[in-house]
Amino acid sequence: MKQDFLDDAVKRNRGLISQGVVATYIPELAKVDKNYLGVTIAYADGTILSSGDTKIRFAIESISKTVVLALALLDNGEEEVFKHVHKEPSGDAFNSIKKLETEPDHLPRNPFINAGAIMTASLIKGKDPVDKFNRVLEFMRLISEDKTLELGEDIYLSEKKTGDTNRGLAYYMKGQGVLTGEVEDILDVYFKQCSIYVTTESLAKIALFFANGGILSTGERIIPKKYAQIVNGLIATCGMYDQSGEYLDNIGIPGKSGVGGGIISPVSSKKLGVAVFGPALDEQGNSVAGIGIMKDISKELDLDMF
Amino acid sequence: MKQDFLDDAVKRNRGLISQGVVATYIPELAKVDKNYLGVTIAYADGTILSSGDTKIRFAIESISKTVVLALALLDNGEEEVFKHVHKEPSGDAFNSIKKLETEPDHLPRNPFINAGAIMTASLIKGKDPVDKFNRVLEFMRLISEDKTLELGEDIYLSEKKTGDTNRGLAYYMKGQGVLTGEVEDILDVYFKQCSIYVTTESLAKIALFFANGGILSTGERIIPKKYAQIVNGLIATCGMYDQSGEYLDNIGIPGKSGVGGGIISPVSSKKLGVAVFGPALDEQGNSVAGIGIMKDISKELDLDMF
Amino acid sequence: MKQDFLDDAVKRNRGLISQGVVATYIPELAKVDKNYLGVTIAYADGTILSSGDTKIRFAIESISKTVVLALALLDNGEEEVFKHVHKEPSGDAFNSIKKLETEPDHLPRNPFINAGAIMTASLIKGKDPVDKFNRVLEFMRLISEDKTLELGEDIYLSEKKTGDTNRGLAYYMKGQGVLTGEVEDILDVYFKQCSIYVTTESLAKIALFFANGGILSTGERIIPKKYAQIVNGLIATCGMYDQSGEYLDNIGIPGKSGVGGGIISPVSSKKLGVAVFGPALDEQGNSVAGIGIMKDISKELDLDMF
Amino acid sequence: MKQDFLDDAVKRNRGLISQGVVATYIPELAKVDKNYLGVTIAYADGTILSSGDTKIRFAIESISKTVVLALALLDNGEEEVFKHVHKEPSGDAFNSIKKLETEPDHLPRNPFINAGAIMTASLIKGKDPVDKFNRVLEFMRLISEDKTLELGEDIYLSEKKTGDTNRGLAYYMKGQGVLTGEVEDILDVYFKQCSIYVTTESLAKIALFFANGGILSTGERIIPKKYAQIVNGLIATCGMYDQSGEYLDNIGIPGKSGVGGGIISPVSSKKLGVAVFGPALDEQGNSVAGIGIMKDISKELDLDMF
Repeated sequence: MKQDFLDDAVKRNRGLISQGVVATYIPELAKVDKNYLGVTIAYADGTILSSGDTKIRFAIESISKTVVLALALLDNGEEEVFKHVHKEPSGDAFNSIKKLETEPDHLPRNPFINAGAIMTASLIKGKDPVDKFNRVLEFMRLISEDKTLELGEDIYLSEKKTGDTNRGLAYYMKGQGVLTGEVEDILDVYFKQCSIYVTTESLAKIALFFANGGILSTGERIIPKKYAQIVNGLIATCGMYDQSGEYLDNIGIPGKSGVGGGIISPVSSKKLGVAVFGPALDEQGNSVAGIGIMKDISKELDLDMF
Repeated sequence: MKQDFLDDAVKRNRGLISQGVVATYIPELAKVDKNYLGVTIAYADGTILSSGDTKIRFAIESISKTVVLALALLDNGEEEVFKHVHKEPSGDAFNSIKKLETEPDHLPRNPFINAGAIMTASLIKGKDPVDKFNRVLEFMRLISEDKTLELGEDIYLSEKKTGDTNRGLAYYMKGQGVLTGEVEDILDVYFKQCSIYVTTESLAKIALFFANGGILSTGERIIPKKYAQIVNGLIATCGMYDQSGEYLDNIGIPGKSGVGGGIISPVSSKKLGVAVFGPALDEQGNSVAGIGIMKDISKELDLDMF
Repeated sequence: MKQDFLDDAVKRNRGLISQGVVATYIPELAKVDKNYLGVTIAYADGTILSSGDTKIRFAIESISKTVVLALALLDNGEEEVFKHVHKEPSGDAFNSIKKLETEPDHLPRNPFINAGAIMTASLIKGKDPVDKFNRVLEFMRLISEDKTLELGEDIYLSEKKTGDTNRGLAYYMKGQGVLTGEVEDILDVYFKQCSIYVTTESLAKIALFFANGGILSTGERIIPKKYAQIVNGLIATCGMYDQSGEYLDNIGIPGKSGVGGGIISPVSSKKLGVAVFGPALDEQGNSVAGIGIMKDISKELDLDMF
Repeated sequence: MKQDFLDDAVKRNRGLISQGVVATYIPELAKVDKNYLGVTIAYADGTILSSGDTKIRFAIESISKTVVLALALLDNGEEEVFKHVHKEPSGDAFNSIKKLETEPDHLPRNPFINAGAIMTASLIKGKDPVDKFNRVLEFMRLISEDKTLELGEDIYLSEKKTGDTNRGLAYYMKGQGVLTGEVEDILDVYFKQCSIYVTTESLAKIALFFANGGILSTGERIIPKKYAQIVNGLIATCGMYDQSGEYLDNIGIPGKSGVGGGIISPVSSKKLGVAVFGPALDEQGNSVAGIGIMKDISKELDLDMF
């Protein structure tokens, strides 16, 4: 891919920004300039292609769920993790609670809906919530190959303050006997993991890491290939919640979005990772212009898995 | 009714005790002797008929929801209360959460399922949780005409400790924007109201109070007749959760049970209140022998509303 | 009650008609003049009080479910009937299907939601659908003390033609193994029972029959008292579908409505039956002016059960 | 891949047969010998590798849904088809009805759950049900490159006789106004499409057709590449109903199963199609030994998409 194409893609899709709005459920997200737009592609050979606002830091939000799942797998093994959370698309909204009641085992359907991500966060090892979060942060720095990643304290405090639906999910799971530990401690890790500031460059590296089977650009293996495949497969089926099928059909590659405006797409067949940032969101909470760029890239590079 | 009949009813239904078990979700309830069995009928003319273990104190649990609803009506008026909670049977279990998600307004279906009772508790006036609970306790003392009612501190602490499903309900409602205030403060009132120690005598007086349209045995009116009718009507349709229809059909009068083993039945057509206590519960969490006694009394006194 | 009061009630509530619309799902109902309004009260002593359009014939629709339940009880006994349908309010809309899937036993929640009424119709004895319906019609003539009741052929054909949601309910129940027999045969009885033309006078007699414990005005007992009580109790808790609680609270007596504009209220404590007819329906499908009249009568005659 | 490996895979997985049972909901399926086991791999270059019982004819059942979707796309275009059915995993069982009620648009979640497949069948063009089915059969013969495919009359009659849950789904959708046409006519096409007798060889050709972007082995394009991608994508996310996530994770390629014992996996990255036949089913209704063979092949040929 040439730089030109990427620059054009950013230009071309900038027009979509007006169709979206920034997330407003916390002031920190509402303050973000909706006109940011950037994209980075990271290849296994070390090539990095970037265009647009790729140095701007934004909250990783739900994209962190992929990273925490990988660490939970590393900490506990596949068998143990999937005793606590299923791998099936839920067919429901990201913060849905009803299946926790109606499914006989009361377990969350997958690690990427909020209930499942809270469950996954509860599986991270560490002596206390601070230690657990630090392990998450260090792991994210490692696989993004970006030592500068930091917690966005302001985002975190806002998430914590307004996270009552997540508290509802967590306490309900605890009440059903399926979540273990102190709810506020678990949520503290969860709110913090969502509040890490990233750039499209760090995210593209994370996407590449998964696409490349769990190997850093140095060639160092960090997680077994199987764990990377699990993460990629779940991104494909559950990454966009109840819009996952639409995304997979329209773009043809797995995608995991965050309400901060980021989307990552790990493409294992081509050993590359794509990340976009565009805080203007569509009604489903996905970056409108970001999806446009993803579509263009997928077509240009013939990424469609099917 | 003669004392003989009541004594016989207690004797006759004692055989059912072996079919039930005491509630075990908190140690304080699990320790209660399952063989207790008592019944009191309170008439508007001041007559009190009692038989069996009618001086034993036990936790009022869900029966408190009727009292707190009455106080919430007094504090806020009918219109305001029913902006926050509906009056419809839910068709679901007492601690069900799914309709809070699936109903477009996210409001609890009625004040007697847990979600609705927590909502009702949130409507009690007072400067802080302690003040609010004291108002509940004083109101309960007033309408039970029993100044000795006290909080069961041990029950309360256990309820608070194990009440995660209720926390889930409350935080989820708060997250949906329908519950206002600090969740732990609201739950503090709720857990305490459930932990008041009562006897069949105090409960029969409460049942009579509602049956008699909100008037004490002194003739003093405490709440408008309409509020008492609302409470009675809701007991009829929602008092036994998803078994309300069965109870109404089998016994023919409204009934509100508590997991502590109590059941009250206000009978407005005859201006009397019945209360039973029998901690051995059936699978639905209702006193097995208590229901037997209620059935016998209803038949003997021809109480069937239909 | 004096005739004057009744005449005034009709006049007073006529103003509500403009707030409602006639049912339009079949042409035969859509053609009915929305300005009709009538009421009849039938007392056990034979007194009949009527005012307004009490000679106009209209489709009984869902009110027939009470009559067919009584006949099913007579044909099969209480135990057998309630092996096939529960007695609990469903908390869902009249034509809801979801609980047929989600409840472990796949049985309808009560005999007054459509699924339950179809089940009840399937329990009527007879050698073929024609015979079964004739038994329903004869039974309805008997308890309404109105030999002139007839099937509305046009209504029936329209119901049959447009009854696909009901077919969905019936086939789904058959597929779950809980409904026995030929679906179209069962639905034929069901569509016909809904299409019987009645007047407020015939309906008031039906209401009185149930209120009076299953006895005709001649004193002849037709069904055991217990069966009448079952019907009355279910009308109280499930008669207005997911608005039953509101009706019971606002009017204070059981009520069963039909989309043809009728409502019956059996009042067992006073041994009287009330029926109204007003085809202008509110959003829930209940007669707007009819509910107004019911409210006035309940207040005037002090009928509130609670 | 060598023939040896395939022969070994069949041998090795034969041991799993004892863990499964044949489908029993219709006698024709119950009569099938559970010990059959066969596999065929079809490559775009025309190579066919087969092992085991690859000449045995069995009912295609739900695998037909992929073929009918392709024809519906060809008949109506993508935009029109997806006005009638979504592309999202449902999170529910294959014959679930509840989302048809609870989703605001009442449309089936995807074309592979029964409700969605019935909807898709209703979109096939033709002057009558016989014509429509003949078009399906001809299309299936075309893309399987097998002119001998025939309707299994006995299977079809049994499916038709016992298909009441499917009738429930169809009539309910018609009642909601989302399904157009005569239900029995639509179901006639649907029951017949499920009753076509196939072999692993014909199925492997169908899988290859989709994997190869809609091109026959002759090089002739039959459907646009986009339609093949849609089918492949939906197989990936919805092919195994509420077990789709597990299959994708364990095998790493899309899979669509049928209760007749078949499974197809189109693998577009390698331009090959795999089909297995093993009528001994696991609890989820998928071929136990067939899944074993798929797993072995995926590993040996490094097919994992992620």
